[in-house]
Amino acid sequence: MAPSTLDSVIALAKRRGFVYQAGEIYGGSRSAWDYGPLGVELKENIKQQWWRTFVRSRGDMVGLDSSIILPKRVWEASGHVATFVDPLVECTSCHKRHRQDHLQEGFADKHGRPAQDMTEIVCPDCGTRGQWTEPQNFSGLVKTYLGPVDNEEGLHYLRPETAQGIFVNFTNVLTTARKKPPFGIGQIGKAFRNEITPGNFIFRTREFEQMEIEFFTHPDDAAAWFDRWVEDCWNWFTDLGIDESHMRRLDVPEEERAHYSAGTIDIEYEFGFQGKPWGELMGVANRTDYDLSQHSEASGAKLQYFDQASGERYTPYVIEPSFGLTRSMMAFLIDAYTEDEAPNAKGGVDTRTVLKLDPRLAPVKAAVLPLSRNERLTPKAKALAEELRGSWNVDFDDAGAIGRRYRRQDEIGTPFCITVDFDSLDDDAVTIRRRDDMSQERVALSQVADYLAPGLKGA
Amino acid sequence: MAPSTLDSVIALAKRRGFVYQAGEIYGGSRSAWDYGPLGVELKENIKQQWWRTFVRSRGDMVGLDSSIILPKRVWEASGHVATFVDPLVECTSCHKRHRQDHLQEGFADKHGRPAQDMTEIVCPDCGTRGQWTEPQNFSGLVKTYLGPVDNEEGLHYLRPETAQGIFVNFTNVLTTARKKPPFGIGQIGKAFRNEITPGNFIFRTREFEQMEIEFFTHPDDAAAWFDRWVEDCWNWFTDLGIDESHMRRLDVPEEERAHYSAGTIDIEYEFGFQGKPWGELMGVANRTDYDLSQHSEASGAKLQYFDQASGERYTPYVIEPSFGLTRSMMAFLIDAYTEDEAPNAKGGVDTRTVLKLDPRLAPVKAAVLPLSRNERLTPKAKALAEELRGSWNVDFDDAGAIGRRYRRQDEIGTPFCITVDFDSLDDDAVTIRRRDDMSQERVALSQVADYLAPGLKGA
Repeated sequence: MAPSTLDSVIALAKRRGFVYQAGEIYGGSRSAWDYGPLGVELKENIKQQWWRTFVRSRGDMVGLDSSIILPKRVWEASGHVATFVDPLVECTSCHKRHRQDHLQEGFADKHGRPAQDMTEIVCPDCGTRGQWTEPQNFSGLVKTYLGPVDNEEGLHYLRPETAQGIFVNFTNVLTTARKKPPFGIGQIGKAFRNEITPGNFIFRTREFEQMEIEFFTHPDDAAAWFDRWVEDCWNWFTDLGIDESHMRRLDVPEEERAHYSAGTIDIEYEFGFQGKPWGELMGVANRTDYDLSQHSEASGAKLQYFDQASGERYTPYVIEPSFGLTRSMMAFLIDAYTEDEAPNAKGGVDTRTVLKLDPRLAPVKAAVLPLSRNERLTPKAKALAEELRGSWNVDFDDAGAIGRRYRRQDEIGTPFCITVDFDSLDDDAVTIRRRDDMSQERVALSQVADYLAPGLKGA
Repeated sequence: MAPSTLDSVIALAKRRGFVYQAGEIYGGSRSAWDYGPLGVELKENIKQQWWRTFVRSRGDMVGLDSSIILPKRVWEASGHVATFVDPLVECTSCHKRHRQDHLQEGFADKHGRPAQDMTEIVCPDCGTRGQWTEPQNFSGLVKTYLGPVDNEEGLHYLRPETAQGIFVNFTNVLTTARKKPPFGIGQIGKAFRNEITPGNFIFRTREFEQMEIEFFTHPDDAAAWFDRWVEDCWNWFTDLGIDESHMRRLDVPEEERAHYSAGTIDIEYEFGFQGKPWGELMGVANRTDYDLSQHSEASGAKLQYFDQASGERYTPYVIEPSFGLTRSMMAFLIDAYTEDEAPNAKGGVDTRTVLKLDPRLAPVKAAVLPLSRNERLTPKAKALAEELRGSWNVDFDDAGAIGRRYRRQDEIGTPFCITVDFDSLDDDAVTIRRRDDMSQERVALSQVADYLAPGLKGA
């Protein structure tokens, strides 16, 4: 059976150093993944595009970067200590713990009907059937202790969402940035959830990155802003190259929504996971005045807005577009993954793997390739690479046949390959090859940067 | 007494929303600070300049982004579990704990001589003299538990330095990025230390950000690379505007070096802290083959390099330039802080506060100011702001007298103010004012972006 696109992308991501397993030399961890030289560039490019689109280029948005660890009181007020829990059951034979709802879903997927009760369900670890404890609530919060003693006073939680750091700073931003609703605060950063069953590559991990917006509006305007944000988020993905036919909107039913949400629309992507091909890319939630009210009550601070024009004082409603950064990265990789045909050295055709990433996202913007390792070509090529590095992330590669080097750049999505050949020594020109159509053009050495610039606009 | 520059900068940073106290509405935390709209832009600009200088523009460097939480075994192998400890003593009267070395330093600072023993030292919390327990070692590592049970198996530590994520991925990067020594791996990210006494604003916090390079060389070349890196790091700060007379090199004596270091040079900055004006900005350490050897031994992986040309297999030495991000931010702010004189509306002069930040670092690149709130000026000004936001972070401000608006932009370091006045309605031109010399020039509306571009090069 041919590998699925998903499998091919995962294999490519590992082989080329987009992603490594965290702590691999110690047997690896499923909690997190590390991002190698290409992965960190792709990830940074996604963050930068997001920040430009949603924060810098909008007059009604500002940015924030709040701390990861916050005291227990914040998470009590936000409702996370009470509601961010999952029912766990323990196999009494092997003492491994599992999420009860996941076991039940697994049973239903396999048998095409729900389990009547837990006695039907087999332990995935030891194979024992139906030997389960009663479910116990297990907190998904990751805790730690700060200060000189491990006690209640020192108990802190790593944030499960960046959002709360925005809510507790609402008045600070209102005052110092002199904003008024409708306006929003954007933040990119790590969040942590003690997932019982992380999995699906970088899709579900305990340590992950979010790109979140909390948009504050008058309650009467919340519904209209909700719709606009769903639209803007959808367009961000399609503008950066995701095919609309691989995305869909899901109106999340009430019983599956987070505790704070009066309405959620998820944008899902067809990742192609076995059994459950679609997965959440991002969600837009109407958090109402829930969070600001909870923090007002718990802290005594008045997280409200006084509208001088109308004389009205109100607690703004919050529309929250929340993106998973590494999920977005995975979707961009899957959507860009293409296999087509390219001419080979023998006059035939080979299958070519190419990541058709938007040039703004491509981790390497151009590769400089001396036709062969040569004392005259190499310095010329190195000097060109050096010059271009002032503007972009540029590779230099002189190892192996030129065709193989093109393939290496194609499969990491490099938009331009620049070949320095023996003619270059005479005509001071180079051949520039475009990734997608493999067309080639001769360009004067002094014009290379100007030639690349339009294709790399906004990168 | 006039406030010190340090005090003025802290007050400005809080007033204008560069920095907020984390969890302020809940009484605040000394563990961390939050970065507001201007702070996050300044911080991002510093990161971006660092990444461009040390990663993207160099052919001998690549980037990485590894996870914050790593299993206990990594930190045992790195030596942190054993050596990352401080001696704590507890006051038997009030049961508060303190670092013994800090108490002793405090005594020496106050009395001009070292304490003979702990009986001389007064508890800073309750005032009791000399009632201290024997010192006990206290780990500076921040711990947590991952997975369904809080036991040894689930015990993980939040990284106290980003470096170890680089070492454990040494072979992954070597293989996938096809690099060979001398080459380096750069990483920017959060790190966590359970400091007993955080303080000095954003200088010493429990949650902080590092920008680190681990540069791998043949052991014979380590000394030369060490010197080059000290030079390159020094130049990075001066190139971005830090006055050399406020920086110095400190050759760290052996007994004060980290456990892995065979030699460390710190670059210090004159922050102006009371009692101890100089503080560490960054340090370059020669970590030798310590870390790679420790991880090789503990994991069984061979973290070595085989040089095909010479036939030599060796464990590279590591030169580590390690920067504190928020310390750098603080130094850039202090160094940019200036008070000079500016003409006021009455024909006299006022004291003007101006942050003379390098334009590449300035959080706001330009501000568009309609001379007054007016139905013809405002749309014209808003359209200009909108256009410029495609390239830069641009403010729009129409509140108050124009002089006051200039001052507001000066004190956050905005390089350009663009005034749309009533003449603009006729001549389609605007007045552009430069921050440092307050010179003004009339520029056609269609030329504004081109006019700003040279001054914002590399921003």
